[in-house]
Amino acid sequence: MSTPASGLFGELFVDAEMAALFDDRATLQGMLDFEAALARAEADAGLIPAAIAEIIAAQCKAEFYQPAEIGKAATLAGNPAIPLVKALTARVAAQDADAAKWVHYGATSQDVIDSGHAQQYGAAQAMLLKRAASLAHLLAQLSREHRHTPMIGRTFLQHAVPVSFGVKAAQWLDPVIAFHDRMRMEGQPAHQLGGAAGTLASLGDHAGAVLDAFIAQTSSPGAGMPWHTARHRLARLAAELGILTGHLGKVALDISLMAQTEVGELAEPEAPGKGGSSAMPHKRNPVLCTLILSGAKRAPGLVSTMLASLPQEHERAMGGWHAEWRTMSELFAIAGTALSQTITLIEGLQVFPERMRRNLDMTHGLVMAERVSLALAGTLGRAQAHHLLEEASRLCVATGRHLQDALAESEAVTAQLGAEELDALFDPATYRGASDVIIDRSLAHYQAWKTARG
Amino acid sequence: MSTPASGLFGELFVDAEMAALFDDRATLQGMLDFEAALARAEADAGLIPAAIAEIIAAQCKAEFYQPAEIGKAATLAGNPAIPLVKALTARVAAQDADAAKWVHYGATSQDVIDSGHAQQYGAAQAMLLKRAASLAHLLAQLSREHRHTPMIGRTFLQHAVPVSFGVKAAQWLDPVIAFHDRMRMEGQPAHQLGGAAGTLASLGDHAGAVLDAFIAQTSSPGAGMPWHTARHRLARLAAELGILTGHLGKVALDISLMAQTEVGELAEPEAPGKGGSSAMPHKRNPVLCTLILSGAKRAPGLVSTMLASLPQEHERAMGGWHAEWRTMSELFAIAGTALSQTITLIEGLQVFPERMRRNLDMTHGLVMAERVSLALAGTLGRAQAHHLLEEASRLCVATGRHLQDALAESEAVTAQLGAEELDALFDPATYRGASDVIIDRSLAHYQAWKTARG
Amino acid sequence: MSTPASGLFGELFVDAEMAALFDDRATLQGMLDFEAALARAEADAGLIPAAIAEIIAAQCKAEFYQPAEIGKAATLAGNPAIPLVKALTARVAAQDADAAKWVHYGATSQDVIDSGHAQQYGAAQAMLLKRAASLAHLLAQLSREHRHTPMIGRTFLQHAVPVSFGVKAAQWLDPVIAFHDRMRMEGQPAHQLGGAAGTLASLGDHAGAVLDAFIAQTSSPGAGMPWHTARHRLARLAAELGILTGHLGKVALDISLMAQTEVGELAEPEAPGKGGSSAMPHKRNPVLCTLILSGAKRAPGLVSTMLASLPQEHERAMGGWHAEWRTMSELFAIAGTALSQTITLIEGLQVFPERMRRNLDMTHGLVMAERVSLALAGTLGRAQAHHLLEEASRLCVATGRHLQDALAESEAVTAQLGAEELDALFDPATYRGASDVIIDRSLAHYQAWKTARG
Amino acid sequence: MSTPASGLFGELFVDAEMAALFDDRATLQGMLDFEAALARAEADAGLIPAAIAEIIAAQCKAEFYQPAEIGKAATLAGNPAIPLVKALTARVAAQDADAAKWVHYGATSQDVIDSGHAQQYGAAQAMLLKRAASLAHLLAQLSREHRHTPMIGRTFLQHAVPVSFGVKAAQWLDPVIAFHDRMRMEGQPAHQLGGAAGTLASLGDHAGAVLDAFIAQTSSPGAGMPWHTARHRLARLAAELGILTGHLGKVALDISLMAQTEVGELAEPEAPGKGGSSAMPHKRNPVLCTLILSGAKRAPGLVSTMLASLPQEHERAMGGWHAEWRTMSELFAIAGTALSQTITLIEGLQVFPERMRRNLDMTHGLVMAERVSLALAGTLGRAQAHHLLEEASRLCVATGRHLQDALAESEAVTAQLGAEELDALFDPATYRGASDVIIDRSLAHYQAWKTARG
Repeated sequence: MSTPASGLFGELFVDAEMAALFDDRATLQGMLDFEAALARAEADAGLIPAAIAEIIAAQCKAEFYQPAEIGKAATLAGNPAIPLVKALTARVAAQDADAAKWVHYGATSQDVIDSGHAQQYGAAQAMLLKRAASLAHLLAQLSREHRHTPMIGRTFLQHAVPVSFGVKAAQWLDPVIAFHDRMRMEGQPAHQLGGAAGTLASLGDHAGAVLDAFIAQTSSPGAGMPWHTARHRLARLAAELGILTGHLGKVALDISLMAQTEVGELAEPEAPGKGGSSAMPHKRNPVLCTLILSGAKRAPGLVSTMLASLPQEHERAMGGWHAEWRTMSELFAIAGTALSQTITLIEGLQVFPERMRRNLDMTHGLVMAERVSLALAGTLGRAQAHHLLEEASRLCVATGRHLQDALAESEAVTAQLGAEELDALFDPATYRGASDVIIDRSLAHYQAWKTARG
Repeated sequence: MSTPASGLFGELFVDAEMAALFDDRATLQGMLDFEAALARAEADAGLIPAAIAEIIAAQCKAEFYQPAEIGKAATLAGNPAIPLVKALTARVAAQDADAAKWVHYGATSQDVIDSGHAQQYGAAQAMLLKRAASLAHLLAQLSREHRHTPMIGRTFLQHAVPVSFGVKAAQWLDPVIAFHDRMRMEGQPAHQLGGAAGTLASLGDHAGAVLDAFIAQTSSPGAGMPWHTARHRLARLAAELGILTGHLGKVALDISLMAQTEVGELAEPEAPGKGGSSAMPHKRNPVLCTLILSGAKRAPGLVSTMLASLPQEHERAMGGWHAEWRTMSELFAIAGTALSQTITLIEGLQVFPERMRRNLDMTHGLVMAERVSLALAGTLGRAQAHHLLEEASRLCVATGRHLQDALAESEAVTAQLGAEELDALFDPATYRGASDVIIDRSLAHYQAWKTARG
Repeated sequence: MSTPASGLFGELFVDAEMAALFDDRATLQGMLDFEAALARAEADAGLIPAAIAEIIAAQCKAEFYQPAEIGKAATLAGNPAIPLVKALTARVAAQDADAAKWVHYGATSQDVIDSGHAQQYGAAQAMLLKRAASLAHLLAQLSREHRHTPMIGRTFLQHAVPVSFGVKAAQWLDPVIAFHDRMRMEGQPAHQLGGAAGTLASLGDHAGAVLDAFIAQTSSPGAGMPWHTARHRLARLAAELGILTGHLGKVALDISLMAQTEVGELAEPEAPGKGGSSAMPHKRNPVLCTLILSGAKRAPGLVSTMLASLPQEHERAMGGWHAEWRTMSELFAIAGTALSQTITLIEGLQVFPERMRRNLDMTHGLVMAERVSLALAGTLGRAQAHHLLEEASRLCVATGRHLQDALAESEAVTAQLGAEELDALFDPATYRGASDVIIDRSLAHYQAWKTARG
Repeated sequence: MSTPASGLFGELFVDAEMAALFDDRATLQGMLDFEAALARAEADAGLIPAAIAEIIAAQCKAEFYQPAEIGKAATLAGNPAIPLVKALTARVAAQDADAAKWVHYGATSQDVIDSGHAQQYGAAQAMLLKRAASLAHLLAQLSREHRHTPMIGRTFLQHAVPVSFGVKAAQWLDPVIAFHDRMRMEGQPAHQLGGAAGTLASLGDHAGAVLDAFIAQTSSPGAGMPWHTARHRLARLAAELGILTGHLGKVALDISLMAQTEVGELAEPEAPGKGGSSAMPHKRNPVLCTLILSGAKRAPGLVSTMLASLPQEHERAMGGWHAEWRTMSELFAIAGTALSQTITLIEGLQVFPERMRRNLDMTHGLVMAERVSLALAGTLGRAQAHHLLEEASRLCVATGRHLQDALAESEAVTAQLGAEELDALFDPATYRGASDVIIDRSLAHYQAWKTARG
């Protein structure tokens, strides 16, 4: 399903490398590789002579065929496999009339198309794995670098308590590794060889042997059992692409919020011509975050299409199968492009620690209220301490006073805490709790994964 | 957003006519028409000389620009409007340095893109209206023709009671008219002119006059209030496309079920090369139904993307706006192509009334059980009559006997009904209830609508 | 479909008033009202005596029936209408054996359930209309009050150019009116009376008359044509609920962003016990925005279910119909509750104009760059002026200097603009463009709508 | 999130066993178990005395608390955890004022709710695993039993070539095992302990130790790294529930199509009161298939909500987290109930082999065309043989003649095939290809899985 990266929208929605995996040429080649593999499998199984298989395979080159011509016939036939097989048969016949009899022998259109897709999806998956690994490296590095860069933690978009930027990056990292693990574990999409109704009936006694040879030819153990209408593995792959995209959306959302004019803790990498505004000369629009987030808006609906297409009728679906084609290529485009954009984003991310520090102080100590509350909870009880701080906080919000100053005058507080203790409690850099445990655990997880995948 | 109809998949997923409305050239022209309309509106409002506006408008021709070049810059800029405005400015400057100052004056990228889309969506809408009208005509005719063609009604895929094929067609018709009405009522999508943050602030005192002139230039009253992040009208349009596609899916589903080998009441139009199977020479696959149903599987997820994109930030969205672009063009492709495929399907639909009649009889009278039950209910009571028929039906299912024969031996029945009465009760053609009322109402509705739309 | 507002989650996801419309009692009553209306319609049509109809109607009171008992039988039967009709028949029989024969006469389960739902949805729609009107009033007032409250416009979460808070409120208002208009125009959901396969065949010659009488009894012209598997109107209603919810999500998103600790321009209404944090005493969480936004996340998927359920088989669906039940009640719960929460939010919204003003100044004049750029464009040309301001802006960002100061030293600028002119250009309050036009148009639209709906 | 199984809709949409895992009591207990585990973890880490932990734990019983009261306060607070912690603290205080200080110490509301959900989801997962195993057993048995039951394979709802019912059942089985494997591999959902912003900052130096002790107390290694806004694992779980439901939809769709009046190869299990029609005494509605399919329509939209909720802000989400609550419980209800309904369906499935055989013959030999075509392809070439059969098939369709008879008169055929050979070619029972390979592979996979899971 051709998604051009060379048109008016450039690589906004699909990068050139990913687009190339799904253009007409790649799609044709995927289908032709199936026909070659089938012929060779049938030769391996003793059904046809090896020479015949090679005559067929020699014609299985995309450049021999015209997408537009095949497309025209596909409109009537219902899919491009039927006219492609015709065109292939004609070319083979021109070489050897006998060989032409064995083109596509025993197979059905869905075998061709599913196997072609398997090859394309497999290549896209490999590209995603490589990109995910690159992103994991960058995030691990970011987490390491900013282990001790304090910033405010925010819940419900409100200042909560201090965290470190390194902890945040660690939590961006973890789901990328999980995605990589799942993708590797699931393996490449299975090829398909089932014939008219999934039993390879027309191959008679050779059926089992051809199937085994086909598995070997395509290195696809999943092809061992035809899955014309059992699409759970594709749906799982789609879901994983949606999950990755959603997670990248989380990273982009965090960054875009931290890049707000009022927050200013991060900025997208700069480049000439990037993110300018046609109306406002001072603007630097967070273009990468915008595009990643647009992907995260689009993926869920596409995944739901894959799930809604699972109930497929009998041995070949009324629409559910066709619905997958553009949906899967679009999901790969979205996930792959978002991944590539996130790599660019993290690679050149501008981090402003001093602004993070300044923002920490902007609520006049309120964000340390929890720490003081808990320091008092031991003697006052959690509820009473919470109440005391809640009241003091409200007062400080109203008056603009610093919480530390207000508390220093409260007898309930000074009875428990000396001035130095209060000072120490108000230092955000030391309010770390399990931060190092979390970062260490995340980086150890990363190292183990890196080692495991060689 | 280019969706090619000339590639490997031909017109399976987008017909050529619809594809042409969304190719790079049409998209460029849409944006350029905005720039021309803006310049002229500013001339009309007295902000710039009319001659300047015409110098600008003269360069607003898609063939002057290279999609690939603009796309390349768009990748960095975040959208194609920024590089297009640059290229347009350069061309205008080559004509008249002074005029170049006024290119895109006061506007923002989103104005260009939204207005370009409005023009494309408007053209697509007009095409859909035309197609929907054609389909309505065909369905009205089908309903009229088959007013008295009895067939079995089916609930939960089980034979229920007789209906006529004309009633079924009437119910296929009604939602097509409803779609047409809604589309016309909503009108064409609004153009957009709001400038940097939706207030046209940079146009100062001329802002109101330019806005009014722009409305006149584009015949777009909806542009009277910028809607950069108020996207409800687009979402409503998307939903309507989804509803139409879903309804066409219902028509295709019914037809595909009636075309099952075991049912055989309908068949898709035949054409050489259409719906053949690469494996099975005797097969005629219902290709059109398959494709329409694949559209019906895909539309809901895309509509959900449009809804999920509604919460857009402040005066310009972080991703929600960009998410609309491919989603809307894909929805138009799906709805428009499904509509065109349904027209072909209904136009050449093969109807087999004798097979409908044969199927009516295949349960040995069981489908008339309700009628007999109700005929007895008057004296026996609904519950007892229902019970009597339920028992008799069960027995007939077990023995293969005809229900009429079984009932003719039941004293409970013969006490109420003579042989002739029983005969009449078992004639499906007279079991019509409100069928004529429904068909008449539907056709009257159709006539009124046809008259109203001129 | 019972959605409790009295449980552990209180009214977080469904308010009590809306929940009451969908509880078991209301659902029972909806179905029983159908049975009463049917009996009376049959009396009106001369099919049964009026006295019989009244005997039946007298038993159509929800309190006579046990939901748990009916539910138990419904599990087997496939829907609650079948056991309810049995129970109703038994109660009627206890009054008058003859009347019992006429209970549910000619109808099918789907008639009962669809009509019951129509009544519940109609009541929910009426409630939504009332709430939408209240919200429109509040937003119109907000827009009026803050017509001249300057604040920064934000695009891609970056400061763009000044707007007024009144313009923003005007754009929150418009889609609420559009929703109200559509809801009123569509009217209440149609009741249903079609009998076994949608033709009322069992009513014989009385069918048309009973159908007309039923329309009158239920004030439901939409019932004039059975729609057992033509669900487009329900899908349209669902989409409208999704669109409303999405728009309320936009309002809540804007407010939550403006309520960020770093922005502080708005705050949610305060109330004792509202939005506290169990961990941080100083926190005031924007609870209402959170809940409204959670609704906006949930609605799109539910709408897609309604669209995916449109292709329903023949005269009664395999699953598509059942899929609607919980989906619709959940959509009403989400939309209704979000509407009620938005009313509370706007009613008590805390607006901080001085903070808006302070934020306007935080970029040291950069947000006025567009205005200056355009003031210079007349002489320098748009491109050169844009370039000049882009450079100056970049410098100011780097040095922290105020843009006005920097420009005052640029000869290219001072050659065109005097000091006073520059001063005036940097006043955000006068940079309004079409703001008043927009607000006036929105308020006029509001007034016209208010007048029209009486 | 309470989903009642005792109301008007009985167990149509949620079975009683599953409903009990999500009712208010279970939800309360889940949250209280978190508080007990936290207290004990803090004791284990030496932060608080063990006796204090036990005093707290003793009050962690759901029956001590009133859902309605907590719900009322939850509406304002934004979640039920805040009022529950208050109520728990009050009860603990009544026992021991000192212990009350340590209730919920260091935790945040999201820790309570996520951990409570983890416990509920874990229990639901265990139930699903058990049910999936039962279903796998039934399907393996069905496949074994019907290894040699010939039936027609259907593609695009048209007769294709013969298969065996055992192959079909084998393909129903495989995805159930895949689901079981994934569920087991993913393990139970992680508990959560992160405190205010995910770093357990308030626990100071004890944070790491408490976290480790909490992991031990809850047997939840996944809690080792807080995941307040990293929700990929929940999304993955949701997707898996959607995939299972979609697959069960495929099984139900196949069965409902095979149970059509015109097909009659299968029937749902019978039971008194099951699937009756309120209008038609002879009807047996496939209630189970209907309900399973309604689940398959609903799950995709709900999964898309989980994916759309992935981009969660900073350290606590604006709506995305709240959106998960009802969505997850609904997905468990749908998947669990569909699983239970599919078990009932397969357990009592009525299989009619003689009808399968009859249907095989209904096209007068056309379904054997592929076999004959391939038998001739060796000498005539695939294309010519295909053409010959296509023509003969068309003729037979037109005339109603049996294909074997027609071919027996064709010289092109008789030149290659004798009468006995032709006879043998027309026997569907021997047209099996890889059927045994597929069944054997599927059953071997099943046996290996059964052995592996002990």
